[in-house]
Amino acid sequence: MFYTDNKLQFPVRVEKPNPVFARALQQAIGGVEGEIRVAMQYMFQAWGARGDPKFRELLLNTGAEELGHIEMLATAVALNLEGAPLSLQEAVSADPVGGAVLNGINLKNLLSAGLSAMPVDSDGVPFDMSHIYASGNIAADMTANVAAESTGRVLAVRLYNMTDDPGMKEMLQYLIARDTMHQNQWMAALEELGGPQDVFPIPNSHPQEEENREFSYAFLGFQKDGSEPPKGRWSEGQSIDGNDSFSTRLMEPLGEEPNLGRARPNSGAQAEQL
Amino acid sequence: MFYTDNKLQFPVRVEKPNPVFARALQQAIGGVEGEIRVAMQYMFQAWGARGDPKFRELLLNTGAEELGHIEMLATAVALNLEGAPLSLQEAVSADPVGGAVLNGINLKNLLSAGLSAMPVDSDGVPFDMSHIYASGNIAADMTANVAAESTGRVLAVRLYNMTDDPGMKEMLQYLIARDTMHQNQWMAALEELGGPQDVFPIPNSHPQEEENREFSYAFLGFQKDGSEPPKGRWSEGQSIDGNDSFSTRLMEPLGEEPNLGRARPNSGAQAEQL
Amino acid sequence: MFYTDNKLQFPVRVEKPNPVFARALQQAIGGVEGEIRVAMQYMFQAWGARGDPKFRELLLNTGAEELGHIEMLATAVALNLEGAPLSLQEAVSADPVGGAVLNGINLKNLLSAGLSAMPVDSDGVPFDMSHIYASGNIAADMTANVAAESTGRVLAVRLYNMTDDPGMKEMLQYLIARDTMHQNQWMAALEELGGPQDVFPIPNSHPQEEENREFSYAFLGFQKDGSEPPKGRWSEGQSIDGNDSFSTRLMEPLGEEPNLGRARPNSGAQAEQL
Amino acid sequence: MFYTDNKLQFPVRVEKPNPVFARALQQAIGGVEGEIRVAMQYMFQAWGARGDPKFRELLLNTGAEELGHIEMLATAVALNLEGAPLSLQEAVSADPVGGAVLNGINLKNLLSAGLSAMPVDSDGVPFDMSHIYASGNIAADMTANVAAESTGRVLAVRLYNMTDDPGMKEMLQYLIARDTMHQNQWMAALEELGGPQDVFPIPNSHPQEEENREFSYAFLGFQKDGSEPPKGRWSEGQSIDGNDSFSTRLMEPLGEEPNLGRARPNSGAQAEQL
Amino acid sequence: MFYTDNKLQFPVRVEKPNPVFARALQQAIGGVEGEIRVAMQYMFQAWGARGDPKFRELLLNTGAEELGHIEMLATAVALNLEGAPLSLQEAVSADPVGGAVLNGINLKNLLSAGLSAMPVDSDGVPFDMSHIYASGNIAADMTANVAAESTGRVLAVRLYNMTDDPGMKEMLQYLIARDTMHQNQWMAALEELGGPQDVFPIPNSHPQEEENREFSYAFLGFQKDGSEPPKGRWSEGQSIDGNDSFSTRLMEPLGEEPNLGRARPNSGAQAEQL
Amino acid sequence: MFYTDNKLQFPVRVEKPNPVFARALQQAIGGVEGEIRVAMQYMFQAWGARGDPKFRELLLNTGAEELGHIEMLATAVALNLEGAPLSLQEAVSADPVGGAVLNGINLKNLLSAGLSAMPVDSDGVPFDMSHIYASGNIAADMTANVAAESTGRVLAVRLYNMTDDPGMKEMLQYLIARDTMHQNQWMAALEELGGPQDVFPIPNSHPQEEENREFSYAFLGFQKDGSEPPKGRWSEGQSIDGNDSFSTRLMEPLGEEPNLGRARPNSGAQAEQL
Repeated sequence: MFYTDNKLQFPVRVEKPNPVFARALQQAIGGVEGEIRVAMQYMFQAWGARGDPKFRELLLNTGAEELGHIEMLATAVALNLEGAPLSLQEAVSADPVGGAVLNGINLKNLLSAGLSAMPVDSDGVPFDMSHIYASGNIAADMTANVAAESTGRVLAVRLYNMTDDPGMKEMLQYLIARDTMHQNQWMAALEELGGPQDVFPIPNSHPQEEENREFSYAFLGFQKDGSEPPKGRWSEGQSIDGNDSFSTRLMEPLGEEPNLGRARPNSGAQAEQL
Repeated sequence: MFYTDNKLQFPVRVEKPNPVFARALQQAIGGVEGEIRVAMQYMFQAWGARGDPKFRELLLNTGAEELGHIEMLATAVALNLEGAPLSLQEAVSADPVGGAVLNGINLKNLLSAGLSAMPVDSDGVPFDMSHIYASGNIAADMTANVAAESTGRVLAVRLYNMTDDPGMKEMLQYLIARDTMHQNQWMAALEELGGPQDVFPIPNSHPQEEENREFSYAFLGFQKDGSEPPKGRWSEGQSIDGNDSFSTRLMEPLGEEPNLGRARPNSGAQAEQL
Repeated sequence: MFYTDNKLQFPVRVEKPNPVFARALQQAIGGVEGEIRVAMQYMFQAWGARGDPKFRELLLNTGAEELGHIEMLATAVALNLEGAPLSLQEAVSADPVGGAVLNGINLKNLLSAGLSAMPVDSDGVPFDMSHIYASGNIAADMTANVAAESTGRVLAVRLYNMTDDPGMKEMLQYLIARDTMHQNQWMAALEELGGPQDVFPIPNSHPQEEENREFSYAFLGFQKDGSEPPKGRWSEGQSIDGNDSFSTRLMEPLGEEPNLGRARPNSGAQAEQL
Repeated sequence: MFYTDNKLQFPVRVEKPNPVFARALQQAIGGVEGEIRVAMQYMFQAWGARGDPKFRELLLNTGAEELGHIEMLATAVALNLEGAPLSLQEAVSADPVGGAVLNGINLKNLLSAGLSAMPVDSDGVPFDMSHIYASGNIAADMTANVAAESTGRVLAVRLYNMTDDPGMKEMLQYLIARDTMHQNQWMAALEELGGPQDVFPIPNSHPQEEENREFSYAFLGFQKDGSEPPKGRWSEGQSIDGNDSFSTRLMEPLGEEPNLGRARPNSGAQAEQL
Repeated sequence: MFYTDNKLQFPVRVEKPNPVFARALQQAIGGVEGEIRVAMQYMFQAWGARGDPKFRELLLNTGAEELGHIEMLATAVALNLEGAPLSLQEAVSADPVGGAVLNGINLKNLLSAGLSAMPVDSDGVPFDMSHIYASGNIAADMTANVAAESTGRVLAVRLYNMTDDPGMKEMLQYLIARDTMHQNQWMAALEELGGPQDVFPIPNSHPQEEENREFSYAFLGFQKDGSEPPKGRWSEGQSIDGNDSFSTRLMEPLGEEPNLGRARPNSGAQAEQL
Repeated sequence: MFYTDNKLQFPVRVEKPNPVFARALQQAIGGVEGEIRVAMQYMFQAWGARGDPKFRELLLNTGAEELGHIEMLATAVALNLEGAPLSLQEAVSADPVGGAVLNGINLKNLLSAGLSAMPVDSDGVPFDMSHIYASGNIAADMTANVAAESTGRVLAVRLYNMTDDPGMKEMLQYLIARDTMHQNQWMAALEELGGPQDVFPIPNSHPQEEENREFSYAFLGFQKDGSEPPKGRWSEGQSIDGNDSFSTRLMEPLGEEPNLGRARPNSGAQAEQL
């Protein structure tokens, strides 16, 4: 169950409203690496968490935090859209650069939302909830969370570099810091689960003798000329999960050219296929 | 540039065609944790890779491998669909369980593809390329790849547990092994980049003095009653990136209730909002 | 800013887990008339609300409530999926009806989520955030909310009629009651804004003398034979907004056959179009 | 069955083609509040209408009207795109404001459609037919239609305010007038069904004694500090459906912290969850 | 401008309602090869048609026909859904095959549409208007139409083979016949435009001396071992457009390994990439 | 099974990086007529091909070619994005036209991909794999391929006309040439299958005596006033499949106004519908 106090988690202040930056901020709301994604991802992971209940609580707690981040960003979008032109004439009468402002916004922010935020990305594409990864495997979920916070901080840094508005920079310094914490937090959760050697390969509940061990630690090469693929930590030394050693193998097809045979009558195929 | 030899990377053999299992296999083709995703993700990461060219080569190489996995699975789907009923009468005349077969397949596999595979998931939802994460940051990309292979192996294990067809079990033992390798491979790539302490926080090119350090390593609590959130590796000890120590902080709103003020005339708002 | 107490708003109890009903419940989570939609819709409306701040507070408050409904339903889905078969053999060995269970679930609930809820509808289609209507016009938003709660209660009633599990019936009696309230609540908000005669036509800030008044209250007929379209409250009497009287008019084209002329050179058209 | 006469319902005239306005008009074609949506929504509602056949006829009739609106807008888009630059050089050589024109259009209107309209919104996102609400409940459908026409008229007013082309203003005056009528028309249909007290709660066929009446007319508060949520018409007085009185109640969790227990073996969970 | 007479283009009669066949018919409504697609495709092609106006009229005329096909199929879906179980108990108490009926339908047809048709495909996925191909090139449009009617007739034949209901077979015999005509009709339109030698390559307005003629009629081989790709009409003889002769060429990379160099500072890349 | 040599199929050279042209090129990658579509379409057609195996090989071979085209275009996008502004200040300080550059790009190319290509179209919409047409009917597949290459070449020509960069022009001359070949190639495949008279109507395996022959070759008229629809090759002479002669027929409804009757109790309808 959830509660609100109507206030902002961190102050949101815009000194010079910039509608193009509003468009950029939309990526942090409705982009695949944005805040709707993490808020909903942590909640769905929590709601499906089996095993030690502390993970459910951990996830719900940070899910609630992220919901407040959407709120901060939505407020920032609306404040940046203040002053956007409402008509083509208004756009043109501004200075040459300003004349391009109407071009530069997601028109839906104006036409559909009346100068407010929407759950869309920086090109106006609505967020699609298939990006909520909640696998029922707590470790796989944590890797998805590390990935989400890594791409999320990359995005926040790009936004930070894009603006010179002091209020926006301050808000992004907070959000970048939170991404730092969350990357560390989900990595820490993987450590809590035993660290790489206990956690991997995910799921660790599947007996490795039931996989084809000949191929479990071999870096396969698919170069056209049969040359060796690039060497690196992935081609030699102990595997990260500690269960074997890496090797390299140039791959040859182990199967034949498949033949599905002829089509069945009444299956809508062309007569030549029957 | 890419080449083919028309053959299968690993033999695909179905002893007892099972149309419902064909539907399940579709998840490994067109699901968000499926093979189209990893094939395309590794390629787009390669095509945008800046810096040391070995990562481009590493990614393209494994991208080519994954393309061959789609081919294997597509063949497996088609072979499992052999014998699916083409008419409602045919479905009913089978044994009681068989009578439910037509219900159990994605009808598009029959109606749109003529008993062949499609780039859709196990519920018939087409794959959406927004799931291709290629961030331009090589480390963030690697975390996304670890996540993809983790959820991918979870899926492959579930498919393995679902079937008792010896051919399908053999094929999945190969694919599970490859997921083991690929989880290790991308973790190894993170080690090649210096390991957690060098890699995180991602992007490591952003100076941490420009983030709000007060919040960079604090586990924030959002419990309604102000109680402490669950403790764990994330709330104490050195941070994973080695840059600080974890702490816990009960969060209070630092911002006020935001007020967007009144709506502008001509913005399509209701008169009461002006 | 948001908080949680990890508890459920209302008890969720499943006496006889039914995986097919789990699939049906998914519609109430990720369907277009489901709870993700209303939770997010009320929040985005709040975050873009201009004018009297009480609407922001009203919307946030009920948004927090709806978030708790997703949590209840996600729990109900997971509980109903307990006991779902994990293998085709397990499915077949059950009784004839049970044999169809694996067919009847969204396979993603098993394959992608490990027997937990997902933000998808009852056919496994992920929720798309374009369904969040937040127009920047407070009255238009209220009509969208009445519609959402009306289709939402229709759905909840259908789910209630579908199950005979006492726990599920009890949970749905609560949710149906909340939909009753919310229909009334948003209608009440329209009354607070002045009722139909003040509110409509939406937006009421646009001067009606700038619309083509000849067509503002005419029910237009498009019958092929020029006969009159069906009569009703919409074709006679005072208009609902009180500004005029309804009439009926058989429509004739007022424009000509449009002609876009010839295509421009270099526009990729066929030579015959130039 | 449907017929055409190839002519336009209302004249479409563009004095000064403006490609950026063409982009804005796309929202009225393929936006969620656009004309494809209402045309298709009214038709699908008609095709599924059970009960008094006059509603089927009413809906089909207005569906045919809306189809003609798409045609008008598509013509307007094509006419506004006349004169758009076909090359980057052409774009740059124009005046400073014109130089931004190529930036400002949906490039697909040029690249995919050759300077014609597409079934996409103003940011180039294709219309998705999940926005067709046809619930099988005639009253719920009417509320969805009121919402569609309300957001539709808000959009049309914003487009009207954006342009100063006399032809476009005239066309939009017609469309705004039709939205006025359609808002009134669907409200009138709700009156034909008995007005608020007979219609609500929707569906009115479900016996209210089977809902949890304790919560049917209570405005629930979810403030973090337990303070009262905002008062208004929704918190006191007779309910809109006339069946009870509104009250306010501060909500406490009625359920416990849910516990899904341990994961099943073979379900792909991590060993720690079993 | 469009008109209706509320009647069906061809009789729709269902002798034995079959909810699973209703699900299959949905593919012909909202599948990518279904009737919404062709209706909307022909209309958007018409609305963007430049050059000889007879193509606009031809397209609008057949667009109106296809709209009537959606209506027929929607009626057929609703009639087939009559008698579908509304509860799980009702489903189970039927005969063993009937027990699987609830599993076999798109649950949205029941839960969202109340036993009526929806604009979705046979797996419940909503139709997405990006499938409307209207290129602004009249010949390219005709090829898209031939493709649409070809896959459309394949689908209709599969549906015809799936049912033994005399009413449904009769309806499908009509729709199959119309697909026969429409395949021929759009092929005839290509002949009207001059036939293959005048029409191809599309667009025929682009001077072929501005393409790289060395590769315009060469069938390129990409076999891993450098062997020749399969021979056929495509590898020898005059080209279909009559402009040259086919040849075969084993392809070698003409470009080098690309190198994007190092990432820019402030671009969010990892330090190692700078 | 697939292989790579890391090299480019054809040189990709950009003399004057142009971020707006990068955006345009995205359409050729992730647009519905782009290279992801053809690469994946040819592969899925191959993987489902039944009958003569040479079609499988033909399709895989050209699928491998198209994969190399995505690689070329992705490289071209990244090279064109070099020099795009990373901040709003940088954008403004450029010349007036340059000032609009940041507006003109898909912001995701910068924010999500760090100045690299993405699998999205020119308006930032991700590619959706429902555009992969693989019908199980080899002839229908070929018509889909002709359509894909026709719209593909129209797009390539528009891109060619848009740029004056010599490197980009050279690359596009190659791609346009390949589209010429591929149009011819798939037309040749249709000839290999017997040419129009053997191939059509597709599927040719369905006996035409089981369609309603009265309507198989009649061009139907749906003009409101009962006038004749436009004449052309489609209304007279032998049909393209050679099986009959074209005629014209003014259509009258052959069915009645459908009546779905009253709604079932417990189906969630309004009481008035029961």
